[in-house]
Amino acid sequence: MNDKPSATDIDAAIAVGAKVKLATLDTRRDDLLPDRKKAEKQLAEDAAVINTLQDRLFAERTRALLVVLQGIDTSGKDGTVRAVFNETGPLGVVVTPFGRPTEEELAHDYLWRVHRAVPRKGFIGIFNRSHYEDVLVAKVRNLAPADAIERRYGEIVAFEQHLVNNGVTVLKFMLHISRDEQKKRLQDRLDDPAKRWKWNASDLEDRKLWDDYQAAYEKMLRKTSSAHAPWRVVPADRKWRRNAIIASVVRATLEAMNPQYPPVSWKPEEFVIE
Amino acid sequence: MNDKPSATDIDAAIAVGAKVKLATLDTRRDDLLPDRKKAEKQLAEDAAVINTLQDRLFAERTRALLVVLQGIDTSGKDGTVRAVFNETGPLGVVVTPFGRPTEEELAHDYLWRVHRAVPRKGFIGIFNRSHYEDVLVAKVRNLAPADAIERRYGEIVAFEQHLVNNGVTVLKFMLHISRDEQKKRLQDRLDDPAKRWKWNASDLEDRKLWDDYQAAYEKMLRKTSSAHAPWRVVPADRKWRRNAIIASVVRATLEAMNPQYPPVSWKPEEFVIE
Repeated sequence: MNDKPSATDIDAAIAVGAKVKLATLDTRRDDLLPDRKKAEKQLAEDAAVINTLQDRLFAERTRALLVVLQGIDTSGKDGTVRAVFNETGPLGVVVTPFGRPTEEELAHDYLWRVHRAVPRKGFIGIFNRSHYEDVLVAKVRNLAPADAIERRYGEIVAFEQHLVNNGVTVLKFMLHISRDEQKKRLQDRLDDPAKRWKWNASDLEDRKLWDDYQAAYEKMLRKTSSAHAPWRVVPADRKWRRNAIIASVVRATLEAMNPQYPPVSWKPEEFVIE
Repeated sequence: MNDKPSATDIDAAIAVGAKVKLATLDTRRDDLLPDRKKAEKQLAEDAAVINTLQDRLFAERTRALLVVLQGIDTSGKDGTVRAVFNETGPLGVVVTPFGRPTEEELAHDYLWRVHRAVPRKGFIGIFNRSHYEDVLVAKVRNLAPADAIERRYGEIVAFEQHLVNNGVTVLKFMLHISRDEQKKRLQDRLDDPAKRWKWNASDLEDRKLWDDYQAAYEKMLRKTSSAHAPWRVVPADRKWRRNAIIASVVRATLEAMNPQYPPVSWKPEEFVIE
């Protein structure tokens, strides 16, 4: 891979094949975007272009972009939002974190709260965790009957097809970090007073279930990476590389959507402003 | 006023007195922040500090900040959001535009949709227009009985008092532009193809009601500028000055709130990460 890979190169490098063995997928990919300075420069450029294209998407107001961020604890979902979308700002961008469902959410099917959070036309929606928790934590911790969880993969594929049919482009990123990297990041939350608020003792319980989670992720990737909404597995041990990769894909996706300022049905000279 | 006024100076300069005559309030204030380069530098610094403090507010998760932006068409509400909060990004910041109410919203009292949009603890909420439309357009265009509108001023003051009592700091900015400046900006929407999507012929109807709107704004300022949620009238003919002023007040407000990373009830050495 050369020093400044194109968006297509990057995308090809992280695309998901039919069968994924996460243990064999490099979480660093030093070959991809080897130079940190250049990657950061590229990120800044991409973020600026994303900002411009989001403005057009907002003006066009006929389609939406949904960015799904999945990954185990400390994999960097919040950090990705900040790095890739801070330039875009809060206007026309809505971040939805999916935590433990509320009583009201539990009183509905698991896609109910997700559908409500789908971005409106003109918007970029970012899911920090998502409906995929319903085949991840739900599976590993047996939060639903096994046959119900088994059925969800197909339901999710159908749901995303429905969104795509109705003008929502769906990008799905799995942030892939190593077991060692997670250890470092958890330790950092203990050691750094400014990060202690992020500490959650239950993360340790999940860490003990590492292999179960990796298996659940593999099944998720295999069962729900569709032509209309493929998964991308992002090497995420290096935060700067993760950010540059995701920004590159988001930018290329928006460029392909090519949003336009809407045509107007009137002539400027029709109006006189007194 | 000196070349780099303090946040307190700026705030004092735009604070609202007991009786406001908008026609006598300068929409440019060249005396305040006279130097554009310096104002832009100050804005960049303030935006960076706002970003840092928002991160703490998010971590603290006990209080919220609500920023209300009001102003006539083209006064620069969207532009303010971009300029002041792009650095902060979409994580923990929610922008709510209030347009024409939906059927469901109309089936409730006018504060119902507003209360739903109040930022959750830890968040900054930005209202692009707000409940104040219910004493502005509603009054000018007679969208509700006169006695009901008259009652709203007190109801709004009480509602905001309720929010403040419950940990929401309320900042209210009226973006004040001149009639000539609005003319220029409307003409710009006709002339610039990238801005035509913002054109709304009904803005011209509102422009014809200029004096009625100014009177409605004056009454609003007089009746709802309270000690717990004062109005600030921002000279907004110069976009860069408007942005710098608002960023300065937002920064000073967050500094006074002084959010803290929450204390933890455990000792880091209690945990061993395997």
